[in-house]
Amino acid sequence: MASDFALHSQLAADTVAVGDLALCSVLLMDDARFPWLILVPRRPDLTELTDLRPEDAATLMEEIRLSCGVLAGLAKPDKLNVAALGNAVPQLHVHVIARFRSDPAWPNPVWGQGTRATYPDHARLQLAERLGRLFAAA
Amino acid sequence: MASDFALHSQLAADTVAVGDLALCSVLLMDDARFPWLILVPRRPDLTELTDLRPEDAATLMEEIRLSCGVLAGLAKPDKLNVAALGNAVPQLHVHVIARFRSDPAWPNPVWGQGTRATYPDHARLQLAERLGRLFAAA
Repeated sequence: MASDFALHSQLAADTVAVGDLALCSVLLMDDARFPWLILVPRRPDLTELTDLRPEDAATLMEEIRLSCGVLAGLAKPDKLNVAALGNAVPQLHVHVIARFRSDPAWPNPVWGQGTRATYPDHARLQLAERLGRLFAAA
Repeated sequence: MASDFALHSQLAADTVAVGDLALCSVLLMDDARFPWLILVPRRPDLTELTDLRPEDAATLMEEIRLSCGVLAGLAKPDKLNVAALGNAVPQLHVHVIARFRSDPAWPNPVWGQGTRATYPDHARLQLAERLGRLFAAA
């Protein structure tokens, strides 16, 4: 019997929930240095993009593009970074990150750069709620 | 009139051609430290994934998954890394990289880590040809 989907504990610890799309849960990375979403397909036992069924892969691409649009509309970044890495957390997840030429990691990728700066509690919830409304309206 | 597609000079300088899929040109990154493909959709004026038409976005996802399968079959990596960054080279391109727990950047991403080690001429062409045959058979 296939196991049920459960969010990896590290992703749960590092993020706050924004809401669920048809395939993916949308999470806000709790790092005030970068507007940063993480998409996690709610299917058990996924590690690589090739583990997705073809129809789920197509949906993931659409949800990535939707997330790019929401994040670009909110943050007006200079560039978006999209990546499925999984070297540290094996559960399949996709980063969608708004990047600025003025941000502390530019032009490098954000992973492993400096120290995460968590949002103040109020700002974190407010941003997650605002993102949820933008996804609902997208 | 829309401009024609032309490969960015930096991508051309850093890679060798493997072959063309329906949408993307497949390039081999000339860095012997990591088995590393780059997919470039042959459409002009693309920077973000959201610049793709929906049908091209779906094709890109399938070509990413095909490339993951070819690279995994060739290199038997511990993990694949897939990313569209574009902080340095704005032309839309997708990295597909075979990662090993024993590689010199693990568990960090490969970008900006250490110094690129180019392949010996013979090995570079041999690997690109072998990849071309694997794509043709995939």
